[in-house]
Amino acid sequence: MQFSSALLENAVNEFAKLPGIGRKTALRLVLHLLKQDSKQVTLFSETIARMREEIRFCKRCHNVSDGDICSICSNSQRKQEMICVVESIRDVIALESTQQYNGSYHVLGGIISPLDGIGPDQLAIESLLERIKQEGTRELIFALNPNIQGDTTIYYIQKKLEGHNLRITTIARGIAFGGELEYADEHTLGRSLQNRMPVENYVNR
Amino acid sequence: MQFSSALLENAVNEFAKLPGIGRKTALRLVLHLLKQDSKQVTLFSETIARMREEIRFCKRCHNVSDGDICSICSNSQRKQEMICVVESIRDVIALESTQQYNGSYHVLGGIISPLDGIGPDQLAIESLLERIKQEGTRELIFALNPNIQGDTTIYYIQKKLEGHNLRITTIARGIAFGGELEYADEHTLGRSLQNRMPVENYVNR
Repeated sequence: MQFSSALLENAVNEFAKLPGIGRKTALRLVLHLLKQDSKQVTLFSETIARMREEIRFCKRCHNVSDGDICSICSNSQRKQEMICVVESIRDVIALESTQQYNGSYHVLGGIISPLDGIGPDQLAIESLLERIKQEGTRELIFALNPNIQGDTTIYYIQKKLEGHNLRITTIARGIAFGGELEYADEHTLGRSLQNRMPVENYVNR
Repeated sequence: MQFSSALLENAVNEFAKLPGIGRKTALRLVLHLLKQDSKQVTLFSETIARMREEIRFCKRCHNVSDGDICSICSNSQRKQEMICVVESIRDVIALESTQQYNGSYHVLGGIISPLDGIGPDQLAIESLLERIKQEGTRELIFALNPNIQGDTTIYYIQKKLEGHNLRITTIARGIAFGGELEYADEHTLGRSLQNRMPVENYVNR
């Protein structure tokens, strides 16, 4: 791609560094911003810079936060004695969007994956164990992605918690709503058969 | 989508204003920036702001430029007596990327479209006519999108230039390379039959 302006080219290059944004898309976005009011573009760039500079991570659950403690942890309406363990901030947003959960979270910041060189020490596991000990947590819910790394992480943490009086669960795995049996992989279908649930539970939901 | 941080939410909202970027994509981009080095994000936001603040439009051809006259217009290696008329900056970039054109450009900033309320007065047509008169242009090449508005614009400008000693052409329309005849629309196929070209021209290219 040939540009007659270095300013334009630099802006396109910056956008093209973002994941999933190619140079053609980057150009489209930059030309869009070029057409916008100058104030609007200033707002855009300042909002991004400010987000990166000022955002903090909750000292309790490691979720993104505007202060020391995030709005979920400081909400007394929520069941703070219940902790949902997730891999990343994105998972908190996904779970919050369901509006079905009223407890607190703990963001591990990754998942145990020896092949990628990620062990328990690089994750916020120690702080989770500490938190459970200090806060007298009553229930731990694992909401990790259903793969080997997720299962390893669950196994590791659960081992560490042996002897604690704590209910430990994981979110249900099975056939997704709207999914069709014939297209489900054997593993999912097999597990959903093993973990079959009484119809009364299902209907009462 | 529920956020526990207003800073994060604002950044997502800003990205989601861009064309073709939904809220899920915006979140992905923001979380990516959050993981980047603070310096990198500052560079990103400053480059965008600077582009919008400092970019100018060439006084001769209305292309984006870092100064009064763009790098294409001020390049003495290029045939300045040849003008390629395009709708937008994006088209200049597309044509430059072919590396097949060595003349100058004129960016109309749109196309005559009565249905959208865009007449000749809103476009850089007057400055084009003035330029042709003053510079003694030898050839005008229309590289407009092949639709009614494009054809109307060509017709209007060509009428205005009657009596000038000037070669006026338009880029060839026909079946695209790699295209298949059976999938081409009748209009394109019909026109490409009408405008058939001697094989010797084709082979010599």
